[in-house]
Amino acid sequence: MKRVRFKIEYDGTKFSGYQIQHNGRTVQEELEKALSKLHKGKPIKISASGRTDAGVHAKGQVIHFDTPLELAEFNWKSALSSLLPDDIQIAAVDEVDADFHSRYDAREKEYRYYVWNAQDPDFFRRHYTCHIRRALNIEAMRDACTLIEGEHDFTSFCSAKTNIKGSKVRTITEARIAASGSELVFIFKGTGFLYNMVRILVGTILEVGLEERSIDDIPRIIQKRDREAAGKTAPSRGLFLWKVDY
Amino acid sequence: MKRVRFKIEYDGTKFSGYQIQHNGRTVQEELEKALSKLHKGKPIKISASGRTDAGVHAKGQVIHFDTPLELAEFNWKSALSSLLPDDIQIAAVDEVDADFHSRYDAREKEYRYYVWNAQDPDFFRRHYTCHIRRALNIEAMRDACTLIEGEHDFTSFCSAKTNIKGSKVRTITEARIAASGSELVFIFKGTGFLYNMVRILVGTILEVGLEERSIDDIPRIIQKRDREAAGKTAPSRGLFLWKVDY
Repeated sequence: MKRVRFKIEYDGTKFSGYQIQHNGRTVQEELEKALSKLHKGKPIKISASGRTDAGVHAKGQVIHFDTPLELAEFNWKSALSSLLPDDIQIAAVDEVDADFHSRYDAREKEYRYYVWNAQDPDFFRRHYTCHIRRALNIEAMRDACTLIEGEHDFTSFCSAKTNIKGSKVRTITEARIAASGSELVFIFKGTGFLYNMVRILVGTILEVGLEERSIDDIPRIIQKRDREAAGKTAPSRGLFLWKVDY
Repeated sequence: MKRVRFKIEYDGTKFSGYQIQHNGRTVQEELEKALSKLHKGKPIKISASGRTDAGVHAKGQVIHFDTPLELAEFNWKSALSSLLPDDIQIAAVDEVDADFHSRYDAREKEYRYYVWNAQDPDFFRRHYTCHIRRALNIEAMRDACTLIEGEHDFTSFCSAKTNIKGSKVRTITEARIAASGSELVFIFKGTGFLYNMVRILVGTILEVGLEERSIDDIPRIIQKRDREAAGKTAPSRGLFLWKVDY
């Protein structure tokens, strides 16, 4: 048996999220189904770096599983491309140590959130961007990002639906905004993220950008440790799990 | 009554083409249905600059129709955005003279064809690009484009399924390739295009790029006036009706 790691891309638009659930189409189920076919019906269980919600995309989700097959990267990709639906793609394949774990060994994760700030939506990227018509104060949002960076208790930026019982202290190593024309990309890197954390961070920072909130709100929200204190959860379609570092 | 002109964008992926037909979802039908609702059930007939095939996209299709309504551009857009499916968008609206015709008054049309030349597909643009894995000789394809420009009888580059009886002489005012990284954009401008003409041109030029054909084939194909002489029809998903000039 060998342990194999895949970097995968998926278009979250038509998925009820990454993780298998009773109702709805999931990325995990499609992957396990395809892998099982490739293994002549033998069930294959995969583990991912973490879940993503319904509608959230991945440019660099990482999964691993054990297999008796010995295939080169190109052969894994071509064998699976005919077994997978067109909204999942294997981007890279490598063999890892038998004790590698896609979730526990993840050192840092990067998420990106795409905002299209213009009168009309970016039509051909409508499933991959959040459209905001009103002008955004980018400098204010950049200042807000600076206040997010570092080690904080992010309880206020965690969905109340979480089932995490332990500490909600996390470290954001980088929070910044790349702007190019009408496109804004929010880039967040950190050692760990809570449920809906990036979307609540973006939703709150956008309220700063729309000047519905002042920058001073940010440290106040962090201190309150109360989801009600933060802004709205930004829509899932703008969010990408971009990269997982090991 | 006023005559109104719309510039529209659509994602051809889930359409059986622009023009209304017995089976299948069409852009024209969706537009007429939405406009009829806006006119309290009164049927509205629209005319377009031309048809597009199943799977072909539009960045700048132009239609016109007559209406008793007097709405500002923003109001047309917002009223229709809730009545149209999410794969059609009104990009611009203006009032035109009562004798304006979107098809007969078109002076020049521009089509663009997107090719993604890399090992793996451009996943998040998979519905909007044609993926070619093998290396392409761009210089040879650019030479082929030069031979396409000008006035020619394009019978060889017209689908045999056409119902045009008259002359197949057309003028291509510009044929060129813009390259940036793995993306190639074929740009064609002309006074008129035949059925499947851009896709057959691209399919044939790609065969030159793959060195399956020599450049000398191009004048020979034109001279033969026979669809069988030209290359394959490139897939519809890479093609955009980009712009119509009046």
